[in-house]
Amino acid sequence: MSTADVGRTGPQAKAPLDGVVVLELGQIYCGPYCGFLLARLGAKVIKIEPPTGELTRHRTPPGVEPIALTLLNTNKSGVRLNLKTDEGKEVLRSLAERADVIIENYAPGVMDRLGVGYETLKAVNPRLIYASATGFGQSGPYSQLGAMDLTVQAMTGVMASNGFPDTPPVKAGVAVADFAGGTHLALAVVAALYQRDLTGEGQRADVSMQDALLPYLTSNISGYLTNGESHPQRTGNQHGSLSVSPYNVYPTSNGFVAILCAADRHWQRLCDVMGRPDLGADPSLAAMTSRAARSAEVDELVCAWTIELPRATVVTQLMEAGIPVAPVLTVPEVLEDKHLIEREMIQTMEHPTLGPIRAFGSPVQFSASRPVPPTPSPLLGEHSGEVLREVLGFDDSQIEQLRTNGVI
Amino acid sequence: MSTADVGRTGPQAKAPLDGVVVLELGQIYCGPYCGFLLARLGAKVIKIEPPTGELTRHRTPPGVEPIALTLLNTNKSGVRLNLKTDEGKEVLRSLAERADVIIENYAPGVMDRLGVGYETLKAVNPRLIYASATGFGQSGPYSQLGAMDLTVQAMTGVMASNGFPDTPPVKAGVAVADFAGGTHLALAVVAALYQRDLTGEGQRADVSMQDALLPYLTSNISGYLTNGESHPQRTGNQHGSLSVSPYNVYPTSNGFVAILCAADRHWQRLCDVMGRPDLGADPSLAAMTSRAARSAEVDELVCAWTIELPRATVVTQLMEAGIPVAPVLTVPEVLEDKHLIEREMIQTMEHPTLGPIRAFGSPVQFSASRPVPPTPSPLLGEHSGEVLREVLGFDDSQIEQLRTNGVI
Repeated sequence: MSTADVGRTGPQAKAPLDGVVVLELGQIYCGPYCGFLLARLGAKVIKIEPPTGELTRHRTPPGVEPIALTLLNTNKSGVRLNLKTDEGKEVLRSLAERADVIIENYAPGVMDRLGVGYETLKAVNPRLIYASATGFGQSGPYSQLGAMDLTVQAMTGVMASNGFPDTPPVKAGVAVADFAGGTHLALAVVAALYQRDLTGEGQRADVSMQDALLPYLTSNISGYLTNGESHPQRTGNQHGSLSVSPYNVYPTSNGFVAILCAADRHWQRLCDVMGRPDLGADPSLAAMTSRAARSAEVDELVCAWTIELPRATVVTQLMEAGIPVAPVLTVPEVLEDKHLIEREMIQTMEHPTLGPIRAFGSPVQFSASRPVPPTPSPLLGEHSGEVLREVLGFDDSQIEQLRTNGVI
Repeated sequence: MSTADVGRTGPQAKAPLDGVVVLELGQIYCGPYCGFLLARLGAKVIKIEPPTGELTRHRTPPGVEPIALTLLNTNKSGVRLNLKTDEGKEVLRSLAERADVIIENYAPGVMDRLGVGYETLKAVNPRLIYASATGFGQSGPYSQLGAMDLTVQAMTGVMASNGFPDTPPVKAGVAVADFAGGTHLALAVVAALYQRDLTGEGQRADVSMQDALLPYLTSNISGYLTNGESHPQRTGNQHGSLSVSPYNVYPTSNGFVAILCAADRHWQRLCDVMGRPDLGADPSLAAMTSRAARSAEVDELVCAWTIELPRATVVTQLMEAGIPVAPVLTVPEVLEDKHLIEREMIQTMEHPTLGPIRAFGSPVQFSASRPVPPTPSPLLGEHSGEVLREVLGFDDSQIEQLRTNGVI
């Protein structure tokens, strides 16, 4: 990469963001996932980490690359930079002068205190898109509140809506706030790039993890707004409105299956497959409303069938009958899933210190370009010298001096 | 809107996607949420529904607008169009000729069977971006499998990872597969628009809800890949790696709070706030690793303090002490949250048949443009005539004929 490569490179561009240069000051999941998406869209992403590495690195002993970091930081260059030194700030400002985008998900105020906030970098490069993700956004009474996935889930209603009615609220088992935030941040960046092609100017993009997560509760919010206080907070594996039956997760002889009868014809077919034409002929169970009113009884009938069979048998028989069904796969099973592997969403690649490891493919695919294949996540500071040389034109003695001074 | 307005309108553009025309053939959550995001980014979104309306409308009696539909379909025009008629197909092809983007989340193969698949519309308008979201994407062994949020959650490992260790797997209480899919689809659309500015050509974008959801499992996948089969599938409200303590949801006298001590200093402060300097002074609990090994005991100590106090008191005291904490808010509480209201993420607006209703703001905000304010979701076919008149130049008699023929 040279200064001349910065900006868009012309009609030979292969992936949508080919030629776009992104500085990522991301940590844990939200910022790094945004960088991951932009890199897989073709952007050149330079990940800038503090001297001890971003927080994900603190979860493993020094020198051992954390798997979570390797999964979300493919296709990035890695620069180690001490922003608490004057020289470090100056290096970041010089990089920002030549970049298109900077993304960051530090706690509120951190970037300003480091002297690399929006106003500072905008003055250096008015075309820069400066995209921040925080727990609660740049405005409003909680804007200065630190946040983690757990606390954002709690304050957005996700936790209260998750789990069984008779057990306490429980966090979603996946980091919904972090990943919803990271995806919305990537959307904001690309929208601002599109606008910049017209206006010639960069701008600040503001994503709040809480805002990004709120629409995910559409079912839960509409249930409450429609039914009022009588609406159940949590419905376990039953439909949020309790108006669909069967709709549940059922045990088999070796695992669980999710089954739903979205229409009455599915129920008729299910009864046939279960070898219970008597149930299918029972007029008192023919309509969705009557089944829903007796859902505990209906679930027992379905369970009596599923529990005697292997999971794969239940799934195959119901799929063949056109009834919505899915095996409840464990994480190890997902990693071996033939579909995800054939789509290259789960790949294996060689890592310089870990050997063969898993890598994600790109969750957005395009007809006009092949997905960008994964390259290993950078070791801490792996490309510090290379980036300073190629982007900023530093010579070896300047780079050596920065190393001596503990800047890189 | 006139044909002359189609495409980008020049440097006076106010929002990032000002001037972009999107046809949305969305249903339930995934497609409509993509349309919602694009509309709030400034695009003109025309929602095209079948004669009986999209599936969300089937959840309420005719004429009663479903709340879920009103939440996700703000800022759209509504066209009713029977794509099973030759005239209906022709209308869609004419609209596609003048649009920039079409988004759809029908089951695999539906658009092709209707005669409005990618190859057909591409021939009509090579600049068109054709973006599809399906459960499992356009390729691979499951590509023809119908999917709903429940089944995608089951087959991506979300369900197996969610809930308490001693209760069965449970779906995430919010529709993670639908919303992850919709957000990634919007990202794909804007990336393809950006690329089109360079190449002049549209393309197909392919988003699989399963692919979009998989990275959300980064913690769970890395836990398993690091620790092997001994890694717990579900950890309830404890940290996925069981290496952080305290980290849980605790009962108070009137609700629950989430508390985590991300660092040893948080534990010291927590002991002070709890009035238990003896615990803070106990060297056997000073280190994270030793607390994590005795997390059940630590949780009991914290719980003994929280359960005696109102939730608000616990939250205020811990926030003042700089300890990560959050109230577990219910959906009704979230809807009254002062922060979400001040950020205009939760708004109230007037709906023509429902009166005052809630509306979401935009989860992506920009410094160079004010958020697009919400306008009510369209009634079924509310703008059919208007869109045909303004976009396609149809006259009143042509429109009347289409109505008579049951096309619109």
